[in-house]
Amino acid sequence: MLAAGAAEAQVTGPITLERFGSFHVGGRLVELSGRPVREYLPTVGGAPLRIDPNGTHVVGQMYARFMVPATQRGTAPMMLWHGAYLTGVTYENTPDGREGWEHFFLRRGWTTYVTDAVERGRSGAAMVPEIYPPPLHLPTANPWERFRIGDGAGSHARGTVLPGNQFPTDAASYMNFMRQVVARYLETDEDVIAAYIALLERTGPSVVIAHSQGGAFAWQVAQRRPDLFRALVLVEPAGTGVMAEAAKLRAIPQLLVYGDYVDADPRWSVIRTNARRFSAAVREAGGTVEDVDLPSRGIRGNSHMVMMDRNGDEVAGLIQDWLAAQGLHR
Amino acid sequence: MLAAGAAEAQVTGPITLERFGSFHVGGRLVELSGRPVREYLPTVGGAPLRIDPNGTHVVGQMYARFMVPATQRGTAPMMLWHGAYLTGVTYENTPDGREGWEHFFLRRGWTTYVTDAVERGRSGAAMVPEIYPPPLHLPTANPWERFRIGDGAGSHARGTVLPGNQFPTDAASYMNFMRQVVARYLETDEDVIAAYIALLERTGPSVVIAHSQGGAFAWQVAQRRPDLFRALVLVEPAGTGVMAEAAKLRAIPQLLVYGDYVDADPRWSVIRTNARRFSAAVREAGGTVEDVDLPSRGIRGNSHMVMMDRNGDEVAGLIQDWLAAQGLHR
Repeated sequence: MLAAGAAEAQVTGPITLERFGSFHVGGRLVELSGRPVREYLPTVGGAPLRIDPNGTHVVGQMYARFMVPATQRGTAPMMLWHGAYLTGVTYENTPDGREGWEHFFLRRGWTTYVTDAVERGRSGAAMVPEIYPPPLHLPTANPWERFRIGDGAGSHARGTVLPGNQFPTDAASYMNFMRQVVARYLETDEDVIAAYIALLERTGPSVVIAHSQGGAFAWQVAQRRPDLFRALVLVEPAGTGVMAEAAKLRAIPQLLVYGDYVDADPRWSVIRTNARRFSAAVREAGGTVEDVDLPSRGIRGNSHMVMMDRNGDEVAGLIQDWLAAQGLHR
Repeated sequence: MLAAGAAEAQVTGPITLERFGSFHVGGRLVELSGRPVREYLPTVGGAPLRIDPNGTHVVGQMYARFMVPATQRGTAPMMLWHGAYLTGVTYENTPDGREGWEHFFLRRGWTTYVTDAVERGRSGAAMVPEIYPPPLHLPTANPWERFRIGDGAGSHARGTVLPGNQFPTDAASYMNFMRQVVARYLETDEDVIAAYIALLERTGPSVVIAHSQGGAFAWQVAQRRPDLFRALVLVEPAGTGVMAEAAKLRAIPQLLVYGDYVDADPRWSVIRTNARRFSAAVREAGGTVEDVDLPSRGIRGNSHMVMMDRNGDEVAGLIQDWLAAQGLHR
């Protein structure tokens, strides 16, 4: 009774960490030459600074931050991988100021790793356009209309949302969400995949929760290094692994989760159909992919940003239960 | 005795947090029009994505992550502001894998805020070159030679360091440091200053520890909003505030810290001379700036990256003692 009480208290109260910290992994060296030197005065009261960009640059590295709870109940480290145009902040908070999934899983005894995928956030980027091409940047209307928050094209200007939408769409919350959207460089997939492999080689075999573009990466990373995955939770993956290599995933328990209004969306319906085809190929090869359609379980109104939705913890609970059922939580 | 014992244990053992989290503050809206639409296939198994960059963009926001210890001994929140080409990771770890100054101060009961200055790290950047001009990126030789690690021009190629250098310069550690170096956009000072003010308006009056470029920003922020500063610790500031407005800082206790080999360096000697002139102006106006030259205190070999040096905790201890002497730690 006492132990159970202590575990419950941890779900909302103070939390004791054995340790926490951060590090970078991976990356490669790129040599630049023949570029012009820049000289500028960096600050008031400073001294002129001469930056010669020629020489060796570190590119493609990745940032990871970890928290190890004093009472560990997960049997493997848990990775939280974000989607495109975003960073690990995806899991740290919600736009309306609630705790994120990082808290949810840490409070349940998981050692959590929150990463920024290569070229985003604290992972740093590179010389533009010498090494990476100029990045894309999203205007405020884009996620509203593309992430199944609003009801289609023009809904941001109208300020309208899908019926029962669970994303916090008051003006302050949506602005908070847009503040965490970052620029996205293209043509960096190989760097991203290499860095995720470097991360898992450092942490050892892990439970990976991956969102959107991160889900597509996770499937591809798992196909290259299935030995580094204890389980794979794909939250609205925006793509798949390589179909011809589906068999490489047969030993990894997988959970596929999509939110509401997927079939009615011209783009997400295609993406889920692709993910289901890919899952079927994994199953055909002897693997296990459990396919959860949240509305069919009575969990309604979820946008693409499931972990930020007002009912996000309900979905986290579903994932937690599934991980426990795989014997990964003690 | 028991209380003292508990405080000591906290310096190396597990740590209990009342809470932790992150958020973004500040930023402004910029309207773009007439730009070409981009269409691409984001991932294997995905669906083509059409990004129309025209519309409203959020720019100039800032990321902050906070940790609140269960036992609070600081009488104000503590901000940890990093320098140019870096992010808050400056304070999170050292290149050779030790705990960072964030741990040092959190373990002594300070509520810590680690931020990424505008346009860096998780703060996100903007459309390039439409909103921010293309960023600069540092090759590996640059910090080695500019941050008083190596002994001047050509020292990176030679692999030579200043006598008694305390920065971890084995190949693995230096690579770890370069992994956390990020691109730097110019012409963003007003956005950076506005975001720091927005942060302090949210947290309330704070103790600010600021490094390098962050020191120059801190002085400038403090001149605009001295009411938001309880104390200001400038670790190798790379610039100053506005000389004509030095009097605005007279009510803020200030500590100025520089490491070793400053006078022998053609650039850092100028920067410190400017900082000392500025400090003299603050004192003349009735303010207090304590000027610490670390080698004069017997703390030798410090590079510009004081908090990462092997003796970095000795310097943190000096700062901690100074803050306690200001009555800011109980």
